[in-house]
Amino acid sequence: MALKGNLIYGQSGGPTGVINSSAYGVISEAFKHPEAIQKVYASLYGIDGILSDNLREIEKEADKTNLELLKQTPGAAFGSTRHKLPLYKDDPTEYQKVLEIFQKYNIRYFLYNGGNDSMDTLTKLSAFFKNSNYECYLVGVPKTIDNDLVDTDHCPGYGSAAKYIANSFAGIVKDASSYLKGRINVVEIMGRDTGWLTAAASLAGLSDCAPDLIYVPEIPFSVNDFLADSKAVLAKKGHAFVAVSEGIRDNQGAFVADNGTVDAFGHPQLGGAASYLCSLLTQEGIKNRAIELSLAQRSASYILSKADQEEAVRAGQEAVLAALRGIDGEMLCFLRDKLDFYSLLYKTFPLKEIGGQIKYLPRTMMNGKGNNVSSEFITYALPLIQGEVSPSYNNGVLAFADFLHN
Amino acid sequence: MALKGNLIYGQSGGPTGVINSSAYGVISEAFKHPEAIQKVYASLYGIDGILSDNLREIEKEADKTNLELLKQTPGAAFGSTRHKLPLYKDDPTEYQKVLEIFQKYNIRYFLYNGGNDSMDTLTKLSAFFKNSNYECYLVGVPKTIDNDLVDTDHCPGYGSAAKYIANSFAGIVKDASSYLKGRINVVEIMGRDTGWLTAAASLAGLSDCAPDLIYVPEIPFSVNDFLADSKAVLAKKGHAFVAVSEGIRDNQGAFVADNGTVDAFGHPQLGGAASYLCSLLTQEGIKNRAIELSLAQRSASYILSKADQEEAVRAGQEAVLAALRGIDGEMLCFLRDKLDFYSLLYKTFPLKEIGGQIKYLPRTMMNGKGNNVSSEFITYALPLIQGEVSPSYNNGVLAFADFLHN
Repeated sequence: MALKGNLIYGQSGGPTGVINSSAYGVISEAFKHPEAIQKVYASLYGIDGILSDNLREIEKEADKTNLELLKQTPGAAFGSTRHKLPLYKDDPTEYQKVLEIFQKYNIRYFLYNGGNDSMDTLTKLSAFFKNSNYECYLVGVPKTIDNDLVDTDHCPGYGSAAKYIANSFAGIVKDASSYLKGRINVVEIMGRDTGWLTAAASLAGLSDCAPDLIYVPEIPFSVNDFLADSKAVLAKKGHAFVAVSEGIRDNQGAFVADNGTVDAFGHPQLGGAASYLCSLLTQEGIKNRAIELSLAQRSASYILSKADQEEAVRAGQEAVLAALRGIDGEMLCFLRDKLDFYSLLYKTFPLKEIGGQIKYLPRTMMNGKGNNVSSEFITYALPLIQGEVSPSYNNGVLAFADFLHN
Repeated sequence: MALKGNLIYGQSGGPTGVINSSAYGVISEAFKHPEAIQKVYASLYGIDGILSDNLREIEKEADKTNLELLKQTPGAAFGSTRHKLPLYKDDPTEYQKVLEIFQKYNIRYFLYNGGNDSMDTLTKLSAFFKNSNYECYLVGVPKTIDNDLVDTDHCPGYGSAAKYIANSFAGIVKDASSYLKGRINVVEIMGRDTGWLTAAASLAGLSDCAPDLIYVPEIPFSVNDFLADSKAVLAKKGHAFVAVSEGIRDNQGAFVADNGTVDAFGHPQLGGAASYLCSLLTQEGIKNRAIELSLAQRSASYILSKADQEEAVRAGQEAVLAALRGIDGEMLCFLRDKLDFYSLLYKTFPLKEIGGQIKYLPRTMMNGKGNNVSSEFITYALPLIQGEVSPSYNNGVLAFADFLHN
């Protein structure tokens, strides 16, 4: 018999195309268990909403329209944060504030939807609650377009970003190939530490629009190899199409496109890898074009992967069920059956194994030269972009949920 | 009784999301008139294909699959060019080559699908054929995401670009609004001379994601006003969302973001208006983000306007019918009924009125301060983005036609 109390849901870190699908999963599942979960709250702007007593109760009937629109709403519908909890030993104030709010609202289930840093926050809070003898079940719901969480086959959000990247890359190739003689097109794709997203450009090959070259952060980037390889493709085909991670690094580990600023977690803020590489081509008098796919990679809810959306909903549902079973301090993970047929098992793993870790693109998913993917990557990624969704439009523009202002 | 002979279709200038829908319209209509049109050719890579005898016969049965995919294929499926015919008096060689090819293939109908510069090419050829006493009917099919052709209410391609821009802008606003405190987001939109595309960002207002500020090339851009206005929005709302045309100019008419290079037609090549404005914000220590929507504006065939796609097909069909009626040296135009109910009339106008002209965004479609649209623009643009299409995907990636390699 699960503990009776209230549930709180929060979002943290960069949004994905399907983070709100997981929200839908959590909330709709929570409503199904009135014997354990009496009220469902959202913390607005992630952990900040808890620290500032800025909660919003979600009601099945009153919020019906908003809830139905969640699955097609980009951004973090309940607001996000990049706030990092200090170590308890350095400053216990925020931990005590969280406890106070949880006690005030009788929160017994905390579902936190985020990436690496968010799982780190959850790990700390879970340990703190245990030490404080406050009974509460904390379960992480993964989300990150970066696909870099360990212990899970892939992360909700990645499939939709991959689908957007593949189709956008294909569109760019078709557009640029309209002319007989072209240029070197360098398409910059998100991915500070890992090449999962950039590798997804390879899926454009399904419509004969595969990148000629793919460069990821895991493999040291050589400017000379890039220049030689891209120029060779241009000479041979009249066009060259290059997919490059924002986080490509030289053989010293230094970012090729480091602009010198850092975010709240101390991560370098990147940008301009494509611009930088194109400036080198311009110096050599070679026609080029730099394209940054930018925010649309995680906010293009007009082209989501149906598989990703469904898995994101399920991740939210399964996380609630896990919490109700008494799981605490774990994250919901996807395990892939190793059979021919793609199917997933849903299982939780301890957060302490996950928070702060990074899952890199395995070397075997890239080719020998390290400048394109191997077939292993295609086999891995293909099931994740399957299926299309048909979102509802209002006069030609997507209709969105808004829990922050309504 | 229409002249018996063959038809040639060509594409020119920058592609749009629906240029191949017009190709579909031209070709499918041509097949319906075997009494006049015996064979249907495409000139590969626009006028270049005629000059180099690089034609491809299109066959109803053999090309069936390719033809069915045309409507969802970005780029110019038959290849495009930016080649500019010299004035006849300066160099008649190319004109004579065109005549030679037309005679060789008995071309009596020439449907050319392009923008300003392409219509200029058609005007010159029409006059040349008349002077040469070669009977041939040349009709222009408009296409340009820029929407800057005169005599037509709007251009095929604009509606889909506008829909992409509105929905992408909405996604960016939702994504960035995930955080309580944000930055000034400057979104750069295509439009060298006119603000039609940038103004379309206003349609994001349908999902409560309207730009706070919109800057177009037609209204002299003041850096000081931009800084003051965007900072005021940021201070008030915690976020600011700015849509800016690549072609914004100062009060001397100089491009704010001129990088000093020109294309084959002598047009300055722009880029970096958003980056430039953001660099000014950075200098003042204000958080910002520059986003360029880039090529996806014309190649995102995963989010086309159904209205635009249907009108593009119809434009191709009507252009063929006009040619068969003996129209020559004219372009197919859209006339909008001035009634409450949106409907279009299809009519041709003389090319010599159109080629080389630019239709600017009327001042009345912008507000008094010139930093956002007026309701007149919304009324104008809203019908053009209506309706969604459901393209067919192959394993999660759009399936495309390929007439250039197959």
